[in-house]
Amino acid sequence: MSVLNIGSGLFTDHYELTMAQGYFLSGKKDKRANFDYFFRKNPYEGGFVVYAGLENLLEAIQNYSFSEEDCRYLESMNFNNQFIEYLKDFRFTGNIYSAPEGEIVFANEPVMRVEGNIIETQVVESMILNVLNFQSLIATKAARMRLVAGDRLLIDFGLRRAQGLGAIHASRAAMIGGFNGSSNTYSAHCYGFESTGTMAHSWVQSFDKEIDAFREFVSLYPDSSILLVDTYDTLRHGVPNAITVAKELEKNGHKLTGIRLDSGDLAYMSKEARRMLDREGLGYVKIVVSNQLDEHLIKSLLDQEAPIDSFGVGTALVTGKDEGALDGVYKLTYIDDKPSMKVSENIAKTTLPGLKTIYRYLNGDNQFYADGIELVNYPVPQLIFHPYHPEKNCSLKGYANECIIEKVMDKGKILTEKSLDESAKYAAARLAQLPAESKRFDNPHIYKVGIGKELMGLRNNLKSEIWKH
Amino acid sequence: MSVLNIGSGLFTDHYELTMAQGYFLSGKKDKRANFDYFFRKNPYEGGFVVYAGLENLLEAIQNYSFSEEDCRYLESMNFNNQFIEYLKDFRFTGNIYSAPEGEIVFANEPVMRVEGNIIETQVVESMILNVLNFQSLIATKAARMRLVAGDRLLIDFGLRRAQGLGAIHASRAAMIGGFNGSSNTYSAHCYGFESTGTMAHSWVQSFDKEIDAFREFVSLYPDSSILLVDTYDTLRHGVPNAITVAKELEKNGHKLTGIRLDSGDLAYMSKEARRMLDREGLGYVKIVVSNQLDEHLIKSLLDQEAPIDSFGVGTALVTGKDEGALDGVYKLTYIDDKPSMKVSENIAKTTLPGLKTIYRYLNGDNQFYADGIELVNYPVPQLIFHPYHPEKNCSLKGYANECIIEKVMDKGKILTEKSLDESAKYAAARLAQLPAESKRFDNPHIYKVGIGKELMGLRNNLKSEIWKH
Repeated sequence: MSVLNIGSGLFTDHYELTMAQGYFLSGKKDKRANFDYFFRKNPYEGGFVVYAGLENLLEAIQNYSFSEEDCRYLESMNFNNQFIEYLKDFRFTGNIYSAPEGEIVFANEPVMRVEGNIIETQVVESMILNVLNFQSLIATKAARMRLVAGDRLLIDFGLRRAQGLGAIHASRAAMIGGFNGSSNTYSAHCYGFESTGTMAHSWVQSFDKEIDAFREFVSLYPDSSILLVDTYDTLRHGVPNAITVAKELEKNGHKLTGIRLDSGDLAYMSKEARRMLDREGLGYVKIVVSNQLDEHLIKSLLDQEAPIDSFGVGTALVTGKDEGALDGVYKLTYIDDKPSMKVSENIAKTTLPGLKTIYRYLNGDNQFYADGIELVNYPVPQLIFHPYHPEKNCSLKGYANECIIEKVMDKGKILTEKSLDESAKYAAARLAQLPAESKRFDNPHIYKVGIGKELMGLRNNLKSEIWKH
Repeated sequence: MSVLNIGSGLFTDHYELTMAQGYFLSGKKDKRANFDYFFRKNPYEGGFVVYAGLENLLEAIQNYSFSEEDCRYLESMNFNNQFIEYLKDFRFTGNIYSAPEGEIVFANEPVMRVEGNIIETQVVESMILNVLNFQSLIATKAARMRLVAGDRLLIDFGLRRAQGLGAIHASRAAMIGGFNGSSNTYSAHCYGFESTGTMAHSWVQSFDKEIDAFREFVSLYPDSSILLVDTYDTLRHGVPNAITVAKELEKNGHKLTGIRLDSGDLAYMSKEARRMLDREGLGYVKIVVSNQLDEHLIKSLLDQEAPIDSFGVGTALVTGKDEGALDGVYKLTYIDDKPSMKVSENIAKTTLPGLKTIYRYLNGDNQFYADGIELVNYPVPQLIFHPYHPEKNCSLKGYANECIIEKVMDKGKILTEKSLDESAKYAAARLAQLPAESKRFDNPHIYKVGIGKELMGLRNNLKSEIWKH
C-alpha cells in the first residue's frame, strides 16, 4: 500500500455505510438533513482552538466517491446490489457552511454545518471528524508555542515521532498555527511551505573527527549550515570546533548560519555557547535548540533569558501532547423539515437543534468579546444566554458583530479556496484579536459563548416534547 | 491531495536529503554503514512493547524512490543536479535484520539493524522511525486492553479521533495487539481484517420514534443488528424498546445481536440492561459498550463484574493515550569498517556500537527470562551485564535461548512476508510467554536486558578513545 486513495468512499466508519444502506432501502434516501460539527472542550486546558483542516476536508469531500474496487469490497461484505449501484454514481451534492480556516473558535460552537440528503450528510461524518479534530488540535498546539516564542523561529521536527501518516497533516496544521517551516519534505511539497533542517549525529560520526565533519558540511553549504554540536561534548569540543569552522568560513566570505543544541540543560548550554560565540565576534551565528520541547519548556527557556533564536519542536507539536485528540462530534440537528436533537443523561451531551449560525461580538478595541449562536433567519441577538444555565445572560448592545460562518460548499462544489499562507496569516490576525486572558496557559478566562432566544426557545420546546414520549 | 504516494522519496526529513547530498558530493557515497533502531522507554509506564509496523515498513522501503515530480521539487529546492540524477535511479539495496512483527521487545534493544551504503541507510531513517514508533505504540496499547479484556470482543472505533491519516495504520496495529475488528473500513480493506459497526444516534433521530428506528434497522439487518439504546433515555425507553423489537424478531425466526450503551455509568447501566434482557428470556442479546474507554476503565468495569460482551474503543486506542509517541531512535553504529558510537552528557543517550543481535533466554516453563545483546559472530553469552551499571550481572547458564533477530531484507528485497493475522497470532503467543509481573500495569517488573562481554569491551574501548580526543 504505497499509494493511498484518501478520496475512497471506504474512508469512513463501517456503520456510516450500514446506515446509508438503511436509508436507501427504507426509502428515506432523499430526506433532507443537517448535521453540525462541534467540539465540547478546548484542548490543553486552554482558552481557544485554531480551526484547521477545512481546505483539505472540502477537497476530500468533493473527491469522495466509490471506485470499482471499493464497490467490489462492499459486495464481498454483502452490501445490497442496488445500493452498490447507487454508490457507483455517488457524489456529495450538499451545502457546507463553516468558519474560515484559521478562525479562532470555542467549545460547543457549531463551527461547521452540513446540509444535504441524509445519505450524503451521513457518510462524510467520519472524514469530517478525522480531519477537523486532528488539524485543529495541532494548529492550536502550534499557536500556543507561537504565543510564547514571539518572533523567534519555530520549526517542526516531528515526522519521526508523528502518529504514522498523521505527520502529513500535522505539519500543515503547524504552519496554520504559526510555525515557520518543517523538516517534513513530503508535506512541504504537498502544501507548498518551506522544508528545512540541520544535520544528524550520524553525519558527525561518519567522519573520524568532529571538526572534519563540520568542515565538509560548510564547504557544501557555506551559507546555510547549522552545525550539531553535541555529538561528543558540547562545550569542550562541539562549540569550539564550530567557532574554528565559522572563522575559516569568514575568510572565504561566508557566514555560518547557526549551531544546534540537542541535549543537556538548554538554558545553561545556550548561554555558554552564546558567550563563547560572541567572544569570538560571531554574534551573527544563531542558536537552534531541540529535544522534547513543548510550549511550557519554550516559555521556561525564554523566562530564563536563554539566548535562543530558533526552536525545533517534534513530538509535543505533532502529537498534541498532552492531549491526543480534540473531542469533536457530528450531530443531526435537522431532518425531514424538522429540527432534531439528542437528549442525554449528561446535560452537556444534549445537542442544540435546528439550523444555526454564529455571531462574534467585538469591543471598541476590535477585540473579541463574546460569541452568540442563533437560528438562521432570525435577527442578530442583542442578548445571549448560557447554554446550560439560562439564568446567566449577557447583553451585547453597543457591540459590533460579524457572522463568522460562511458558505464554503454549494451543491458539492467548493466555493472558497485559501492558500495555506492565507490561513496562517488569518489565524495570526484573529489570535491577535483574542484577549490575553483567554490565551494564558493557566486557568484561562472562559470566553463567553451563548445562545440566542430563538434557539433557546426551540431547544426547550423540543426537550419537553421528547420527555413527553 | 486525495491520492498520497507514501513511497515517495520525499517522505523523509529534509536533513536526510541534505546529508545524503553531502555524502554524495564528498565522495563518501559508497561507504558502508550500519544503523540501529531502538527505543529508550517502554510506553505507558508498562513492562513491554509489541513490535509492529515491520511488514508495512519493508514494503515502503522496497518502494522508496524518487519520481520525476519528486526530482523537480528537489531542483526547485536547489539540490545539486548530479545528486538529483543519482536519485533518479535510487533504490534501497541494503540488508535489514529485525525482530519479527508481533515480537515482544524491550527498551534499549536494537530491534532493527539496517546495513548498506551510507546514503541508503541514512535516507530511510525518517520512515523507519515514523512507522515503527507509531505502530508499536498502538499495538502495545491494544495488547494492554486485550490483557484485561480476556476473550471478550474488542473493536476499534477510533477513526474519528485518530491523528488524521494515522488512523489507517492505527487500526492495523490494533489488530496485531489483539483487537477483533474495526469500524475503519478503509484500513480493513487495505489490510484484510473485519470491519464492523453498530448505528449512530442520527439513525434513531431520523425517525419520529425510537422504536420505529429499531424496527426498521432489524428488518434490514435481522441477524446482525446492534441497537444503540441511549439516544433519549437508556433504561426507560432504549432498553425496553430494544426488548420489544427483539421479541418481534424472535417471532420471525431471528435473533437480535446486541444493544450498545454509549453514555452514563456503564457498570450500572450494563447490569440493569442485562437484568432487563434476561428477565425477558433474551440472555443471548449481547451488551456492547463504548465511551472514552481505555485499559484502566475496561479493567475497572470487569472488576465490578459488569456483564459486558464487547468493548468499542476509540481515542485511547488509536492515539495511544496517555503517551502519544514511542521515543524510538535510529543511530549510526558502524561506518567505514569501524564501529561507531555517540557519547552524551546523559549516559542513557550513549549508544551501543557495532553490529549486534539479541538472544532471548527462556526458563523451564518456556517463559521469557532475560534478553542479551551481543556483537554478531561471537558466542551466545552465558553472562550478561547491566548496560550502565556493569557491576550488576546475571548468569544465564542452563537457560535455553533463541536469537530473536532475523534477516528480513536482502539487498533491497523483502525476505519475509507475514499476514496481519499471523503477526497477531504471533504477538498473542509471545505475550503468553512473558511473565505476568512484566504485564501488570502498576510498577511492572523490569525485564532484564543486558549486554554480553564482547559488546561491553568494545563500548568501553571506544568511549575511552573518544574522551581522549
